[in-house]
Amino acid sequence: MATITGNQLIGFEEHQGIGITFNAVNAATGEKLPVDFFDTTEDQLEAAMQKASQAFSVYKKKSPEQKALFLEQIAAEIEALGEELIEICQQETALPEQRLLGERGRTCNQLRLFASVVREGSWVGARIDTAQPERKPIPKSDIRLMHIPLGPVAVFGASNFPLAFSVAGGDTASALAAGCPVIVKGHPAHPNTSELVGKAMLEAAQKCNMPDGIFSLLQGKAYETSIKLVTHPIIKAVGFTGSYKGGKTLYNAVQKREVPIPVYAEMGSTNPVFILPEAMKKRGEAIAQGLAGSVTLGVGQFCTNPGLVLFQDIASQTSEFSVTLSQAIENHAGGTMLTNDIYNAYNNGTEVLEKTDGVKLSSKSKVASNASPMIFETDVDTLLKQPIISQEVFGPSTVIVKGNTKEALLKAAEELEGHLTVTIHADGSDIVEYAELFEILREKAGRIILNGFPTGVEVCPSMMHGGPYPATTDSRSTSVGTLAIMRFARPMSFQDFPQELLPDELKTDNPLGIMRMVNGELKR
Amino acid sequence: MATITGNQLIGFEEHQGIGITFNAVNAATGEKLPVDFFDTTEDQLEAAMQKASQAFSVYKKKSPEQKALFLEQIAAEIEALGEELIEICQQETALPEQRLLGERGRTCNQLRLFASVVREGSWVGARIDTAQPERKPIPKSDIRLMHIPLGPVAVFGASNFPLAFSVAGGDTASALAAGCPVIVKGHPAHPNTSELVGKAMLEAAQKCNMPDGIFSLLQGKAYETSIKLVTHPIIKAVGFTGSYKGGKTLYNAVQKREVPIPVYAEMGSTNPVFILPEAMKKRGEAIAQGLAGSVTLGVGQFCTNPGLVLFQDIASQTSEFSVTLSQAIENHAGGTMLTNDIYNAYNNGTEVLEKTDGVKLSSKSKVASNASPMIFETDVDTLLKQPIISQEVFGPSTVIVKGNTKEALLKAAEELEGHLTVTIHADGSDIVEYAELFEILREKAGRIILNGFPTGVEVCPSMMHGGPYPATTDSRSTSVGTLAIMRFARPMSFQDFPQELLPDELKTDNPLGIMRMVNGELKR
Repeated sequence: MATITGNQLIGFEEHQGIGITFNAVNAATGEKLPVDFFDTTEDQLEAAMQKASQAFSVYKKKSPEQKALFLEQIAAEIEALGEELIEICQQETALPEQRLLGERGRTCNQLRLFASVVREGSWVGARIDTAQPERKPIPKSDIRLMHIPLGPVAVFGASNFPLAFSVAGGDTASALAAGCPVIVKGHPAHPNTSELVGKAMLEAAQKCNMPDGIFSLLQGKAYETSIKLVTHPIIKAVGFTGSYKGGKTLYNAVQKREVPIPVYAEMGSTNPVFILPEAMKKRGEAIAQGLAGSVTLGVGQFCTNPGLVLFQDIASQTSEFSVTLSQAIENHAGGTMLTNDIYNAYNNGTEVLEKTDGVKLSSKSKVASNASPMIFETDVDTLLKQPIISQEVFGPSTVIVKGNTKEALLKAAEELEGHLTVTIHADGSDIVEYAELFEILREKAGRIILNGFPTGVEVCPSMMHGGPYPATTDSRSTSVGTLAIMRFARPMSFQDFPQELLPDELKTDNPLGIMRMVNGELKR
Repeated sequence: MATITGNQLIGFEEHQGIGITFNAVNAATGEKLPVDFFDTTEDQLEAAMQKASQAFSVYKKKSPEQKALFLEQIAAEIEALGEELIEICQQETALPEQRLLGERGRTCNQLRLFASVVREGSWVGARIDTAQPERKPIPKSDIRLMHIPLGPVAVFGASNFPLAFSVAGGDTASALAAGCPVIVKGHPAHPNTSELVGKAMLEAAQKCNMPDGIFSLLQGKAYETSIKLVTHPIIKAVGFTGSYKGGKTLYNAVQKREVPIPVYAEMGSTNPVFILPEAMKKRGEAIAQGLAGSVTLGVGQFCTNPGLVLFQDIASQTSEFSVTLSQAIENHAGGTMLTNDIYNAYNNGTEVLEKTDGVKLSSKSKVASNASPMIFETDVDTLLKQPIISQEVFGPSTVIVKGNTKEALLKAAEELEGHLTVTIHADGSDIVEYAELFEILREKAGRIILNGFPTGVEVCPSMMHGGPYPATTDSRSTSVGTLAIMRFARPMSFQDFPQELLPDELKTDNPLGIMRMVNGELKR
């Protein structure tokens, strides 16, 4: 058993906590867990910063192979934590064992995926334009471009993915892959889990001879620490997954910096699902089953949870859908949410919906003892008048929005804000009939799904997990999938450098064998 | 001869000016030019916005070939303006005919380069991960990603490149190539030139059957118009080239928007040049000649003008350099600057330098009748104490900064802010001796040049024209070269779409023959 200390992990040093304490809570029972954790002091924050800055100058010179081995070693060390990690994480989050085993697998797969991206090496987007000394009127220089790391990155762990979007999650993996040291602010809902994973990372760093400061883990509940972290001049980018309020607060704080830096805040969304008439008619029952599963999956605690479902109100065609959905929700056992705060927020959010004029609660779990799945119902006119309806309620509820006409649905689509995903269920004639809807929705999300459900975010090269504001603060970026590495790099040109001074990625004989654009042509 | 009207070009409509007028000035004589121009009214701005929004929904559906032909047609229409464009531009800017012919060539080459990028098509970064319906425990969906355009873009013309960084310059070309309509705010120093080029663009748009609103040109001097332009909800990105003050003002205005958008402000820099001891000893005279040429090129009116020159103060090795540089500057005829305001700012900037403690004017042109080339001299200690010395003085001056030791130079390098470029002159033992300097400077610029000079920005795939703040507001972007197109696009995933609903870029049989990442492998 690893010993959990409640210490801050400042590079390879542990700093004992001082000052204000907090404890994790057993999410299922409400009991305090034994280890005392502490807010980060200013000195601790500064120590982590100085170490990260020093580490950057060493880490950026490590070869792609060395970085890849480090990422793989982190995965191995997390796996080596064994059952203890799963048990502790289960205590802190009330997430079921199977889910956590899956999430641990995903976390380690992500690390290995980024290792493979770094090892393969083409991600740097190398471009070479060779010299033309004879060109008139001006000779052409030799110019070579590649992406280089930005510098130390601040990452905020998410409450709902204690492994895959936390200490060693996607933001950390992609930042390390890009060549950036990482300072994680652990989520205070699962500090024990964070410490275990943080120590595994540091163990990997030691074994791989990585510099002190390549990684630090700061724990704490104080809002000020987060603000100091993102406004510190050493930090060159921020990765965040969480609520709109949390993300926007960090974003606003960063706007006050003298030197601007990118903030990649993934703040969730309501992920609208459109069900078109023919699909509704043909597959109403199946769609309702799938939707109920998507709404209640993980007690609705996913940023891709579908919170709005829109369709045309044609009674003869929607009854099977409605009956099936109601039954599925009424018979769903609900579940324990990640924290008491999240549970309270869910209850508040659903109460607000219930009290909103023109919105009614149409079904609710009859068997749930804790967070109850719920379906609300309203119409397009009400939705357009009351924007609160389209705001995320984190948990297992969704709002059915009925439109009298196709035009009403198009109007509702036009008025949507940015979302991580939009989903369309369409069969046969729907595709032609609603071509305009497809066009409109393309502008509203980062991922558009046909005849599926938004939950379940595949970690792969083609995944875009992001979207127009307010889903994220930077629609040009994804926080899942291999493209996430580009968030932490910038292009840099080398002009007239001799071979021996060029990075391997840009040497003429292409020692790394990467894909490059040479005199305009992509080749290895 | 085309008729210059002073009208606002709101898509295909001309709106007659009302309200406050301004006139261009013959930059050489100070005489007012005849046509009255006007500030943009709110109605005109709103009309341009609505048209751009409408145009976007049409333009984004145009094929790559149609977009490429449009860009090529713009180049042809600009060339068809013939001598008149050059004459009028010469009047407004006092730039010599040869320079303007060169700049027109560059402008048209840029448009054709982006046409070739769009036609080739791989820039969209397509990624395809095919379905694995049999995968356990969860089947894998078919997911396909490509970059799609952001939406209407606001572009600000620069004073110092009336063609290549103005109405149909690099920002406009790359935004149109990405699929975005463009609203240009013309620089008030050359409104006649802007109108001529704007009309050429609209002529091309008409001939290519592009939608009304694909391009608008707003003229005016009012600060408020610029603010309204960048804070309008329809605008999805901003391209700017100009002063720090101008760029930062726009950036700050954008921070107040409800919905954040990227601001690509290229705000110039002082482009430090380091001359290392062995290079100084061996090539002092040649470096001085090259440096004098770079400092005075185009009357110093380039954002890559070298404004700081740093070397070790070893009298026996620097005397040839110093004598040659002084002579070159003393004998340089200077030149007429773009505008009277710029001339005054140059005089003010050099006066401030001259009055700064520890800085002395070491040489000045003895023959210039207008803007006089000047060399100032100081030492590292003074530079570190007086940050004003490292601020850009737009014009043909530079500051020599001498260090007593290698460590002093390294310290000066460490303290540099972000720049577009840094240059190192290094021979033989310098490379090993100053390895640390190379490391430090990599973090300070977007382009690093060995044994050359920063002026002369090649338009090619490998060019990075950007850099860490305050050189730009977004170090992840370049405003020159083909990579500039990525500023105006965002990734988008399509999940489980049938072939007929996918964009051509993502269809399985790759009808466009572009480079794509298919199941992790890059191929055509």
